[in-house]
Order: sequence, then C-alpha cells, then structure tokens
Amino acid sequence: MKPLKPLNALIIELGLKKGPIFINTAKTLNINSINCPALKGGAIKIQALLGNSPKSIVFRLALLLQIKPKEPFMKYIFILLLSSILANAQVKTDALNLMPWPQNINLTDGDFALNKNFKVNITGNPNPRLFTGATRFLRRLDGRTGLFFEQGFVTKINEFPSAQLQINCVRNGKIGINEDESYQLDIKSDKITINATSDLGAIHALETLLQLLQNTNNSYYFPMAVISDFPRFKWRGLMIDAARHFQPVDVIKRNLDAMAAMKMNVFHWHLSDDQGWRIEMKKHPKLHQLASDGDYYTQQDIKNIVKYADERGIMVVPEIDVPGHATAILTAYPEVGSKINFDKTTYAIERNSGIFTPTLDPSNPKTYQLLSEIFDEVCPLFLGNYFHIGGDENEGKDWDSNPKIQKFKKENKLGTNHELQTYFTMQLVPMLKKHNKTLMGWEEIMTKNMSKEAIIHSWKGTNEGIPAGQSLTNTVKNGYKTVLSNGFYIDLMLGVESHYLNDPMPKNTTLSDEEKAQILGGEATMWSELVTPTTIDSRIWPRTAAIAERLWSNDTITDLSSLHKRMKTISFQLEELGITHLRNKDFLLRKISNNQKISALEDFSNICEPLKIYSRNSGGTEYQTYSPLTLFADACTPDAIDALDFDLAVSRYLDNKNLENQILVTGYLKKWINTNEKLIELSSNAPLIQPLLPLSKSLSDLSQQLLLIIDKKQEVNAALINDLLEQCNSKKHADVELAVYNSLKKLISG
Amino acid sequence: MKPLKPLNALIIELGLKKGPIFINTAKTLNINSINCPALKGGAIKIQALLGNSPKSIVFRLALLLQIKPKEPFMKYIFILLLSSILANAQVKTDALNLMPWPQNINLTDGDFALNKNFKVNITGNPNPRLFTGATRFLRRLDGRTGLFFEQGFVTKINEFPSAQLQINCVRNGKIGINEDESYQLDIKSDKITINATSDLGAIHALETLLQLLQNTNNSYYFPMAVISDFPRFKWRGLMIDAARHFQPVDVIKRNLDAMAAMKMNVFHWHLSDDQGWRIEMKKHPKLHQLASDGDYYTQQDIKNIVKYADERGIMVVPEIDVPGHATAILTAYPEVGSKINFDKTTYAIERNSGIFTPTLDPSNPKTYQLLSEIFDEVCPLFLGNYFHIGGDENEGKDWDSNPKIQKFKKENKLGTNHELQTYFTMQLVPMLKKHNKTLMGWEEIMTKNMSKEAIIHSWKGTNEGIPAGQSLTNTVKNGYKTVLSNGFYIDLMLGVESHYLNDPMPKNTTLSDEEKAQILGGEATMWSELVTPTTIDSRIWPRTAAIAERLWSNDTITDLSSLHKRMKTISFQLEELGITHLRNKDFLLRKISNNQKISALEDFSNICEPLKIYSRNSGGTEYQTYSPLTLFADACTPDAIDALDFDLAVSRYLDNKNLENQILVTGYLKKWINTNEKLIELSSNAPLIQPLLPLSKSLSDLSQQLLLIIDKKQEVNAALINDLLEQCNSKKHADVELAVYNSLKKLISG
Repeated sequence: MKPLKPLNALIIELGLKKGPIFINTAKTLNINSINCPALKGGAIKIQALLGNSPKSIVFRLALLLQIKPKEPFMKYIFILLLSSILANAQVKTDALNLMPWPQNINLTDGDFALNKNFKVNITGNPNPRLFTGATRFLRRLDGRTGLFFEQGFVTKINEFPSAQLQINCVRNGKIGINEDESYQLDIKSDKITINATSDLGAIHALETLLQLLQNTNNSYYFPMAVISDFPRFKWRGLMIDAARHFQPVDVIKRNLDAMAAMKMNVFHWHLSDDQGWRIEMKKHPKLHQLASDGDYYTQQDIKNIVKYADERGIMVVPEIDVPGHATAILTAYPEVGSKINFDKTTYAIERNSGIFTPTLDPSNPKTYQLLSEIFDEVCPLFLGNYFHIGGDENEGKDWDSNPKIQKFKKENKLGTNHELQTYFTMQLVPMLKKHNKTLMGWEEIMTKNMSKEAIIHSWKGTNEGIPAGQSLTNTVKNGYKTVLSNGFYIDLMLGVESHYLNDPMPKNTTLSDEEKAQILGGEATMWSELVTPTTIDSRIWPRTAAIAERLWSNDTITDLSSLHKRMKTISFQLEELGITHLRNKDFLLRKISNNQKISALEDFSNICEPLKIYSRNSGGTEYQTYSPLTLFADACTPDAIDALDFDLAVSRYLDNKNLENQILVTGYLKKWINTNEKLIELSSNAPLIQPLLPLSKSLSDLSQQLLLIIDKKQEVNAALINDLLEQCNSKKHADVELAVYNSLKKLISG
Repeated sequence: MKPLKPLNALIIELGLKKGPIFINTAKTLNINSINCPALKGGAIKIQALLGNSPKSIVFRLALLLQIKPKEPFMKYIFILLLSSILANAQVKTDALNLMPWPQNINLTDGDFALNKNFKVNITGNPNPRLFTGATRFLRRLDGRTGLFFEQGFVTKINEFPSAQLQINCVRNGKIGINEDESYQLDIKSDKITINATSDLGAIHALETLLQLLQNTNNSYYFPMAVISDFPRFKWRGLMIDAARHFQPVDVIKRNLDAMAAMKMNVFHWHLSDDQGWRIEMKKHPKLHQLASDGDYYTQQDIKNIVKYADERGIMVVPEIDVPGHATAILTAYPEVGSKINFDKTTYAIERNSGIFTPTLDPSNPKTYQLLSEIFDEVCPLFLGNYFHIGGDENEGKDWDSNPKIQKFKKENKLGTNHELQTYFTMQLVPMLKKHNKTLMGWEEIMTKNMSKEAIIHSWKGTNEGIPAGQSLTNTVKNGYKTVLSNGFYIDLMLGVESHYLNDPMPKNTTLSDEEKAQILGGEATMWSELVTPTTIDSRIWPRTAAIAERLWSNDTITDLSSLHKRMKTISFQLEELGITHLRNKDFLLRKISNNQKISALEDFSNICEPLKIYSRNSGGTEYQTYSPLTLFADACTPDAIDALDFDLAVSRYLDNKNLENQILVTGYLKKWINTNEKLIELSSNAPLIQPLLPLSKSLSDLSQQLLLIIDKKQEVNAALINDLLEQCNSKKHADVELAVYNSLKKLISG
C-alpha cells in the first residue's frame, strides 16, 4: 500500500446555474468534506452517483444543489474537497488525454516524479533534429511546470549518460511517408526510456510524454506506463490554402508545431490560386509583383519553413494549381491564357470566391516553358519527393471558346477537355521528375492516359453529387495511389464527428490487399476563402486533432464521448504552441462588444456555429477577399461547446424526467433568457451585436415557453412552439445558426 | 436646433459590487428612465451629482444603489437609459480618447455618418506608402464597423474624385527625423478632408481619424471637428532588444503598427549583445551560425521590416553593440577579443543577464577590419541615416589585464579606458559615413575627442547614481545632439506616470535655444532579459502610448486622470493591430490555472505587478535566457488596473467617510478575501498557483481586520495591523508585489 496522495480538490463553479451539475472527473473520488463558507445557512443535498465505467472506476457525480445562502449577492462558488479512496490511487488509462490514441498502452502503479534536475540524454545515431526536438520538449515542459530545469539545450550524443530521460534512436530518419515512425516509451519510477528506429519516432514519443504529464496540488509527475505506438496510415496531412487569404510565416510555423503535436507528417501548402500567387520568383518576378498584393513568401521564408517542418518530422508538399484556378498566374502572364484577344486587362486577381474561367492554354508551347521554369525555381526549395499541381475544377469554358485550342484538341485526337487536361498534365510529369518529384493532383487529373505514378487526391463526395468514398475506391481500382480529403474538408464548418468517423479505409470493403495498400492516408483541407490569420487556427484546431487520430490510431478508436473529453484538454494544450483559437476568440468578442464585458457574448457564441457548407458566402460574392472577417460568425466555431452539453442534458431528461434532469435542462433555458437580456443591454453601445438579437430573441422566446410547459404552468400550444422552434432554425442572422436547434427539436418531440 | 439623437444607453454592470459606482461618461446626460426588470421590488436612489467640468459639461454620477432584488440569484445587471438633454448633444473634446493628444482640436456640432459607400481619394504627390496606408485604414475601419466597404484598395491618384474622404498631400515624405509631419483634419457632415505637406503627416491624420470613430447603438460616425496637429519632438522612438530574447518578424511588425498608431517615427533595433547576434551575415556567416542559437533575421527579413516600417512612416535605426556587450561576436570571432591566450572555448553565448567582460580588442587591426566588413554588409539593409554602435557598459576589465592593450594605450597617449574607447569608436565614424550613416551611441561614447556629429543617447539617471536629466544636459552643453531614454526604461516595470511626466525638455531650464534644439526627442527602451515574444507586447503597451504622447503633444498635456482614461481605450484598440497584451495574459493565466476558470487569477493579477528595477532577476543569474517566462509575474504588468481604482477609492474615503465611500472601499476588501478563497481552491489542481498564496493570504488577512475596524466591530490594534500591512509589502513571493500596498498604508494612516 502506498501512502495517500495529497487531497485532490474538485472545484465547482456554479455561476448562474441553479440546476444539477455534471462532473467528469479523472480520478477515483470519495467525498470527504465540504468546505463552503458561502453556504452557511444553506443546504447541500447530494442526489445521486450515476454511471460507473467498471474498468476505469470513473464516476460521474450528479449533484442537486438546493441553496439558501445567507448573503443574497455572494457569488456561490464552493469546493468539494475530495480525497482518493484507493491507497494506490492511480491515473487510469481512460482518464488520459492522449491524442492520437496510442496503439498499445499499459499503465502500472507508480509515478515518475519530475524535478528541476530532470535531464535528457540521447544515444544512437539520430538526425540532428532530435537535439532541437528534445530542447523544445524541455522548454515546453519547463514552461508548463515552472521548474527551471538546469539543462538549457540538448546538443550532442550522450551528453548526460545519467539523465532520467534516455532516448535511444537507431538511425537518421528520412522525412517523407515511408519512414519507420514507431516508438516505445517506458516510464519507470526513476527512469524514462524512449526507443525508436528513427528520430521521427522519437519525436512522436516526446509528444506522447508531454501529453502524459499529470500533477498533484504542488508537483508534477508522469504515470508509470509502457507504450508502443506506430501510425496506421503513412500520409497524415493538413493542407493550408495561403492563396485566398495569405497566411504569414508565423501562422504556418505555429500550425506545423500543432501538427507535430498530433503526429501529423505532411503539410500540403496551397500556394497559388485565382486570388493570389504566393511565392517570390527570381526569374519571373511579375508573378509575385503583380499577383500577390504584396503578400508572398520569400524563397528564404519557404526554405526556413521547410527546415522548420523537417525539424518536426513533417514533409512539405507545395501546390501550384494548374491549368484552372490560374487567374493569378495569368494576371502576370496573360499570354499563356486561353482567352482569345487578351490584353493587359484580360486577367486580374480575383476578389470573390468560386470557380472561375481563367485557364492556362494547353496548346501554347510558352505555357510549358513558363511552367518548366517555375518548377525549376520552386522544386529545389522543397526537400520532399511530391509536388501537387492542383488540376481541379477546370470547366474548360475558355478552351471551348478558343478555336486555336479546339484545333489543337482535334490534331492531337483528344476527344474531351478532360483528355486535353490529361495531355497538359502529362507534360508536367517529366518537368517534376527532373527534380525527383512525383506529381500529385486533385482527382480530376485522372483519366486513362494519366501516369500510374501520379498520386490522386480524392476530394469529391456527396456535396459534389457522388457517394462518399466512391471517388477513393475508383482511384484505387484504377491503379493509383491515393490520399483522401473528402470528409476532411474542415472549411465546411461541419461537426467534428463527421470528420472523425470518416475512415479512409472503407468498412467491409471489397478492395484487395494490394488495392488497400494504395490508400496512403488522408488530409484535412483548410481552404481560406473565409479565414484570416486571426481566425484560421480556430477553424483548424482542435478539430484536426480528431482527423490526426483517425489517421494514426487503430480503426476501433471511435468513441465520441472520449473524443470530446480529450479534445477539451488538447485544445487547451495547443495554446502552448502558439495556436490562437482561444485567445483570438476573446479578442474578436471584445471588438464586437465595443470593449464591454464579453461574458454574455461568449455564452451566446458557445451555442452558435458559422453557417455550413459554404452557405455563408453563397455565390462567392457576399464576401470579397478584403471584406471584414471580424464578425460574430468569425468568433464562433463548429462544435459549439455548450450545444454538445445541452444535447446530453436533453437526452438524459428524455430518458428519465426526474427532478435533477429537469433542472439540468431548465438551467440552460433560463441561462439563454438571461443571455438575451444581457445582449440587448450590450447592444445599446455595440452596433455589431444588433444582428444577433433576432436569433437570441427567438431562443429566449422559445425557452420561456418551454419553461412554462416543463414547469407545468401552461398547456402545450403545438403551433406556437413549432413556430418559435422554426425561428430558432433561421440561417438569416449574423451568418450563424443555433447549434442547439436539433436538441430543442428533440426535447419538444420527446 | 437639431433633432434629438437616438437614445444613448449607458450600461452599468455592477457585478459583485454593492457600493456606489462611479461613472465617467462621455456625454452630457440626463436620466430619462430607468428600465431594470431585475430591480422590481427593489429601489434605486440617486445620491449625488459630483463634479462638473464647465467647459465640457462632463458629469460624474455617483449612484448609491440600495437593491432588494426579487430573485436572490439573478445577476443584477441593469440599464440606465439616458438620453441627451441638449438637442445638439455632441461628443465633447474631453471625452475623446485621442493619443497622442493633438496640438489643436476644435469640435463643432454635427456628425459625419459612416456607411458602406464610404471611399477614400488621394490627390497631390505623395509617396506610394500613402496608398497602402489608406488601404490599411479602410480595412481597419471596415473590421471595426463591419460595414463591408465597397472600396477594396486605394491604388492611384484621384481614383474616386467624389469620395467622402479626400486626402491632399503636397509631396513625397522622406523617412527620418527632419520631415514635416504636420496635418490638418477637417470633418464636416458630408466630407472629410486631410491636408498634409508630406504623406507622413497624412498617415498620422488617418490614425487620428480612426481614434475619432464614435457609435450609437446601431451606427458609426465621426464628430465634426477641425484638427491641426504636429509633433513637439522629431525623434519619437521605441527600442526593442532582439538579442537577449529573439523577437520574430511578426512581433516586430505588429509593434511597428502600434508605433505608427501612436505617431512614433523611430524604431531602434538592438541586434547584438552578449546573448546573441541576430543578423544573417553572408560574408561572416559564423556570426549567425555560431552566435544566435538559430534565432536570427535573414537579410531579406530585415529589408522587409525596413520597408514595412517605411510604409508606416518609421525609420529603423539598427544597433550593433561594441566594444562591450560583445560576447556573441567573440563567440564567432574570439581572435578579436581582449582576453589573452584565447581559444575556441574562451567565449560562449551568455545565458545570464548583466554586464560581462568580453570586449573587442581596440588595439587589433583585425577588429576594425571585421567591423568595417560587417558595416559594409549591414548598412545597406537600412534606409535611414543613423547607425547605433552601442558603446555602453564597457568596464574595460579585459583591457586592463591585457599587456598588449595597455602598451597600445600608452603608445597612443590614451590616459583612460574611456579615452581608449573613444579612440575605438572614432575608427567607426568613417566606416559608417561611407554608407551615409551618422554614428549614434549610448552616453558612454562621449569624451572630449568624440566627433560632435555623433548623437549621444542619454540613458543614465538615478538608478546609475546621477541626478535625472543631468546626463542629458551635459550632453547638450558639450555640443552634441541627443535623444533621451533615461526615464523611458519600460523594462524597469515602473508605473506609467513616471514615464509620462519625464519631459526631455527640462522645466525651468537654463539651456539656450540652440542647446534646446539639440534635444531631438526620446525613446522608450524595451530590454528583453525577461520578456519573450509571448509577453513583450504587455511590457511595451499600452504604456508606450504615454511616452509617445510626451514626445508628440504640447508640454501642458499632463493630466494623469485623462491619461489613464484614454489609455484604457487605446489599450483595447491596440488589439486590432495584433498587439497581444490582453489575449496573451489570458493564455498565461489559463496555463497557470491548469485549464481551470481564470477569473480569480485575473482579479489577483489586476492588483499585482512584477518586481521592479531588475529586482526580479537579482544578479542576473536567477533567470537564464532559456528559463520559463510563463509564470504569474509574466502575466502581471505594471499599472495594475484595479490598484489604480482602489487608490482613488481610498482617497475619496479619506476625504469624506460617508457611507458610499465606505462601501466603495470595503467592496475591494471583501473582493480580496473572496479572491484568496478562490485561489486556494484553484491551487489544489494548479501547482503554479501555490507561490501566490502567501501574498494573497496576507492581503486577505489584512482586509478582514480592516473590515472589522471600518465597520466599527473592533478596535484598532496598531501592532497587528502594521504587521499585516508589512506582510503585504513582501517581495518574496512569485516575483510580484502587491500594487495596493501604498493605498492600504494610506488607508491605515488616514
């Protein structure tokens, strides 16, 4: 028997709620004492202990609080001091907030206690990136714990043979998709050992170790554990579109850090589109001078980012999108466009969103000369072996209307524009091969004449009128390697579940093993029509952590409540890497509130989500690239956090309409009535709050009716309720929708 | 008489306070109706109308609220709806939140109403920076108002002759310190006109216009006004030390934006010191390769930053600190150091703070060859005509112990190390002149042999054992031009008042007019021993706005309550430019709280300040450059906002011990008792809160005693009270001090 741990205190801030509070606690707990000066003269009744996961002994406490405080205006925050009931109280596996979840984990009793003498030692033959990686690990651990580690830098092999953390690494890892990324992590009470074939695996192990950090009230420790881990898919990517809205170097760097924390290994960098060309070009400076509004990466920026990614185990795949999505290129070089009788004004940087006609001329030798020279300059900036040439959404309108191109098509016996595009794309294959790059393109590049070496990037699905997964399966059956992005379009503002359950390997598939092996993995796509450097992090994170887990972890890891629980902690930890999703939300809300208190706005934002599936910018013309993206919809995110909790409350209430469950639901309704009042107040000095008021009023009106019904003070007027409910389904206000609509509907139907 | 304006609503959020509330209101107000559902069954008593500035008719309302709400847990936020009593209700001059305050401002009745058709037109002959400047102005205004302006970019002269905002600019402004930066801004109801000699003045005018933006509940407008404005001093600088802690490009850029918003025109960039060399060097790559830990600016980064600054009217003055503060240079080139028998290990990048001995060898021709080649490479990166060579804090220890240098000193008849240093510095003058740069250095470079063309940077004062201002006066009397930094050391963590009242032009000075003209202006210095990219903004802003005002505005503008009022709004507005002082504070508090609610930590941080005058890092060895700067002291800032308000409350109470004033003071005491309880609760799951608890407990204990005394429930026990008070003066906990100590002392003594 080990001695009792220090008291663990569980703090419950009730705020305005009067109803029962659900507590997810990570530890095995016993209520020991209640210390609450604010409640003298009041009373607390512990109503029930619900739920009990037998393996992990995680309790869910439901507390019904009936409070009669002495002082009417005292804020009634109080403590339940809880101590462990088990002498060897141990962090349980289910309580860990690991993402992506490791393939194998075995926790045992005991801890490794952290102190300022903690040191790292590296043995074996790793790439130098492991030294900088271990140094960053030390800095992050020191920043979290404030321990002032003595070791400032990890600089060479076997620097501190007696260090508590030993990293053994067999060989120099090669960045890409075919390296051994596995690792073993063994935490004992006096020593931590990481074994990995390549430093890429060792770097992953350090991220796992950081996620394992636990604390008491005054110390930090790692739980004793043995973990062996490896990725399920070899391509675990994130694409960032730096063309629609330029994303400066610091945005890219912090997202690379976050990717590395989620063990992702491919950064796909969309560098040109109708709205901009983002690469400094020495030989063709017109590209960045005329087609970037001054927003581009210098070649040294790019080299630095490629190195930065490399140090974090990430390959960078550049994309230059051709022959469509080429307005920016044609703004600089109209002579290689497909429009007849062009002049200097024929093409201009696009300010709207959508699919546009400007297309490179596949019949013009100058087109290929230009592209060849571009590749000669751009390819050497990147270390990886892949180059993405786009190839999507070319509708061929300018080809159809250009007789010269039609003639070329006939002469070359190219029956369709699709075949003409393949002819075009095939010209690029040797240009890239010259630089040892494999061509990759969106699925439109695939026709029977496309090289089987090309990697086909599958992106179409139900939004494009074909069944989800069909495009991927077709690709593989046609003999191509493929990467899945359909289902991983994080710019659609859909809930995380849809991405999380989107497995690149179809369930019950009839694919052969060889065909399955052609599915390399997947990639989240962050198109940037409606995101700026201020908001992009909040669209990528924490949701992309769920995609990273889908691509790394075992296919059986699909529990949504575990996902949501772990994402909350991961979301918090991502801030450490500079990710701005939480802090910039507060900034936007302060701005919208006109420097007033933001709590009511924050509460409302936690049940609102930006309009989905591109309906916010219908037709692509409501927002220009220079339009303000500093509005309420920009502060809101998918997976509105209170909406999820409300849905749980409704389900529980419909399952059992006891008093606690009723109070839980009505607590939300009362809160929203209150939020509406506060928003009205704030709006008197904040014009940007005005557009929210109709939606807030609808929710408040419905909440008032539902309260009367639930409290049995009024009969149900179905017509009225349904009318109010449908007003809550409005998509007409402030570019947001109420994320609680479906739960309200369920509550009403139930 | 104009029609009545829409109701202006003044929202008072009482929060936890029960005492009287002081309202600073910008408008002439009359209480029209009180609409407060929460107060039915309660009562409001308007106690008094205090204060009345005859010119501006700004009222201060003191409301004593006696509330008996119906619902015990209802949060009692309520509105006083107030409408104007004057038909021509107008924003008054004193209510404007302009910084720096303009030289002349005349508000008249009426508004310019803003709508989405708002456009900008430029005439005259400005530098192209005015186009990008006007475009940024449009984006910021659009971001604040959400109006979706039609005009995306301002690209050429006379693009929209009928635009509502006309900017007339006589000529291309030359960046530097001798340009005409004046402007006239005339806002009429249907047109806004900016007239400026140079585009630098026009850019300043656009910042003033942005600060003038007002709003009703659902619209935005500018008040009608005529402003003519010009700077008092020609050198209005901010120095950022990028050597002790590297500050990435995005940190520099956002600070340049903030400087421009405050009409500052010199960015002094401290690029080398004992802790690092931060410039990529093509001919001497060992400098950045061996002496930067990989953290340096590429030459293209520097060129981009210089251009970015130029577009905002700011000159960049680089600093390479020699012959002392040279450990980084000597890490790369030990052969030009002053130590005898050096080898590769003689010098290594410094990890501590302080004054170190490594010094360039002034007797070695190689030293001058290296410096000459460095200047040949670095000078062309900068457009301005000044180059700072440091020259400070060379104690000459390594010179004294090197016989070769002693011999050189004798041979050259240099009596002191100070004269030897002047010999050294004078060798640099022609190296810089070759590139058309004037040499500037810290005041130590001044001896009788120093060129009178050099600019002497005055920094010493009472901390260095000489009277404040003496060094500046000496410099001028010696015939040098000078820039003042003594009194503007923002890294000392002193209150803003000390910087604000630090006038470069001594009061009642005996200096002649010629001598006065030698005082170019001043410069805030942000030394970075204890700041990281995460915290640097919170050390610079909003305080540097006060320094900017001292350097721009009339010397009669010294009212501290106006300063504090305006700084609150400026602080909020700085966020728009990417300044992270508010959002990163929340991030650090979330981290310290271990992902719990941060409100109690925030409350405590608002009365705590980091230890002052370098006492946080006593001896320079408590923190290394890699130590965690993510602690509570890093989240705290000088000018703790609640401390200032508490001090006002105490003064008011001591002046008149009526019930309202008593409740105001006791409200704070009760809050701190509550904060202490909450911190104890939080600390049970947050080791980083533990170090705050002793200080929080001291304040809570003293508050409890003071409450009993004020409520006349207990006699004064002077010994006990003084003991508790002195515990509140402790500097031993968490690297912070209680900023309310002096006010508490005053309260007890009074």
